[in-house]
Amino acid sequence: MSTVYIAGIGITPFGRHAERSLQALAVDAGEQALRDAGLQGSRIGIGFFANALAGRLFGDSTLGQGIFAALGINQIPVLNIENACTSGSSAFYLACQAIRAREVEVALVLGAEKMCVPQMGRLHSGNSDFDALLGMIPPASFAMRAQRHMYEFGTTREQMAAVAVKNRRHAQANPVALYRSPVTAEEVLASPMVADPLTRLQCCPIADGAAAVLLCSESVARRRGARVRVLSSILCSGSYQSPQDLARWETDFRGARAAYEKAGVGPENLDLVECHDAFSIAEILHYEALGLCPLGEGGSLAASGATAWGGKIPVNVSGGLLSKGHPLAATGIAQVVELALQLRGEARERQVGNAQVGLAHCMGGDLAADTKSFTLSVLAV
Amino acid sequence: MSTVYIAGIGITPFGRHAERSLQALAVDAGEQALRDAGLQGSRIGIGFFANALAGRLFGDSTLGQGIFAALGINQIPVLNIENACTSGSSAFYLACQAIRAREVEVALVLGAEKMCVPQMGRLHSGNSDFDALLGMIPPASFAMRAQRHMYEFGTTREQMAAVAVKNRRHAQANPVALYRSPVTAEEVLASPMVADPLTRLQCCPIADGAAAVLLCSESVARRRGARVRVLSSILCSGSYQSPQDLARWETDFRGARAAYEKAGVGPENLDLVECHDAFSIAEILHYEALGLCPLGEGGSLAASGATAWGGKIPVNVSGGLLSKGHPLAATGIAQVVELALQLRGEARERQVGNAQVGLAHCMGGDLAADTKSFTLSVLAV
Repeated sequence: MSTVYIAGIGITPFGRHAERSLQALAVDAGEQALRDAGLQGSRIGIGFFANALAGRLFGDSTLGQGIFAALGINQIPVLNIENACTSGSSAFYLACQAIRAREVEVALVLGAEKMCVPQMGRLHSGNSDFDALLGMIPPASFAMRAQRHMYEFGTTREQMAAVAVKNRRHAQANPVALYRSPVTAEEVLASPMVADPLTRLQCCPIADGAAAVLLCSESVARRRGARVRVLSSILCSGSYQSPQDLARWETDFRGARAAYEKAGVGPENLDLVECHDAFSIAEILHYEALGLCPLGEGGSLAASGATAWGGKIPVNVSGGLLSKGHPLAATGIAQVVELALQLRGEARERQVGNAQVGLAHCMGGDLAADTKSFTLSVLAV
Repeated sequence: MSTVYIAGIGITPFGRHAERSLQALAVDAGEQALRDAGLQGSRIGIGFFANALAGRLFGDSTLGQGIFAALGINQIPVLNIENACTSGSSAFYLACQAIRAREVEVALVLGAEKMCVPQMGRLHSGNSDFDALLGMIPPASFAMRAQRHMYEFGTTREQMAAVAVKNRRHAQANPVALYRSPVTAEEVLASPMVADPLTRLQCCPIADGAAAVLLCSESVARRRGARVRVLSSILCSGSYQSPQDLARWETDFRGARAAYEKAGVGPENLDLVECHDAFSIAEILHYEALGLCPLGEGGSLAASGATAWGGKIPVNVSGGLLSKGHPLAATGIAQVVELALQLRGEARERQVGNAQVGLAHCMGGDLAADTKSFTLSVLAV
């Protein structure tokens, strides 16, 4: 089985790009990744374009072919991947598979989203999503989880706010993050209530943006001096919502176990984690699924400072979705970009000392379909 | 490198299914494939759901997770694949890769489309597709190719009509085909003109429908007695439209060469072909790309009867898109279903004698992006 390496990365600033098309953002990130790898586009053997919303917003979801052609990459397989918030990480997962199958030596994965447009409206899961039409949009769903976690484990509003404060502090050192000014716990708790107990500063903002990762086989990596390798990449989908387990996702725990087992590492080996903090409570739930702390102790872990930069296991030193912004299909790839920067020791002011093993974690899916997908990738240098 | 086998197939009738949802159609095809393989859903290691239009038509394109959950298949990777008319065959391509990467032993590929709905409207490539808004919808684009082929090679209207007549004759023996009554060349030529020279009976009809293929590794195939194997599966994307080669797609020729080379066969070894006859002229163009005849002789080949059932190299014995109907993402999988039936000797009245090697060929993509994807799979028994 061929080991997969990361040879190049690229990312655009996340935020409002009124003047740039979805295609232009993706091409920008892709060009950066090619430059970073020092590879010509002609070396790319397969291309993945991840995007979640263009079908709904722009009536077009077959964009990858044109984007790769604009990058000067032609006559290769190009695939469009849509998996809600895990679109980018699902594409990453498939690209790893293509290299491991020895189908290609080099794969380029692009993820891009354009959300800051008038037709964006309220994000739900389509016309068939009656729950969403009745108000069960993502903040409401996560607020119910937060309430349950508070009830079962005594998690506090202050502990949840600590996640938002930490990630905003991290974002100060990340030039691509959307929100980079620090906030206090008081400000987080006093910001407008979206769905009790989640205030606005505990909900990730939408954004336009793109990210790219160039993957390669071991032999290409050796020639190019690429050192960051993929120990495991997991995608796990499944239904999760049942009244009795609102405070945990079975699939999240299962995905984490699989990712650790395939990688041959455990949570104790991780030097940093990028996880899917779409809402403050989500990061706390993921701490528990990822085994960073026992079940029910995620709130205390957040408040302890252990997951802050300089702590025992820094989480979301990029600023996370809460501060960086969440351009859906770019997010999962941006997490890998952050890990690669850290593992290469190139993260400047936000560099985690002696970072050798990192984990990227994403979740996404329909509320309507009552299922979620979790992706987890363990990278090492 | 592990060989990939086809262990099960399923297909719904193609046509108008006013009373059945996209999800229900996909589940139906999936259940058939599981029954056909004699496998439990719990054996599935990865799931692909191909669909092209649900994002645009229903505002929801993350449907796979819910569909696999409805099949009782849970806690596995599920991916949604969108590649226009090659959505289904792209998913098939990725599923082969997953098995060859030894990621899983069994993969289920579903393709479904629901097009017979009021909001379907005119099929084009999105709001950014200015060419389409100006009238360059698929029939117009293919009509220009037909005109060029007539000009360059002397191809006649009668030769093009022969494709439609042949495929309708084939469809009589296929219970899932939408149009099963025979037509004459006169009727084809006298049907309403859509885009000169293409009359209505030379344009494939839209349809609702679903198809499923269950793929497995060699070791599972041995235990289940599955005999149909995948010799090669190719996806080739690229820009193609330039004024000087309207009568051929470079990518089509390139894809065919790659598919034959990987499979270790040539066109002379094929016993049957299912190809993407979205328009009569398309089948003629594909004859040439696939090497069934020299460049420019596709029209004569169609008129000669060699590509009819009982001829030298039968093409679209299923009835093709022209008669079966074209539910976009189901089409590529339906072609594989037809090949599997034929190679297993289970195609009843339309059985091709001693069928040992078959090729499935699909094309799709944005007109706007000026690119197309071609997929080719060679199967053998």
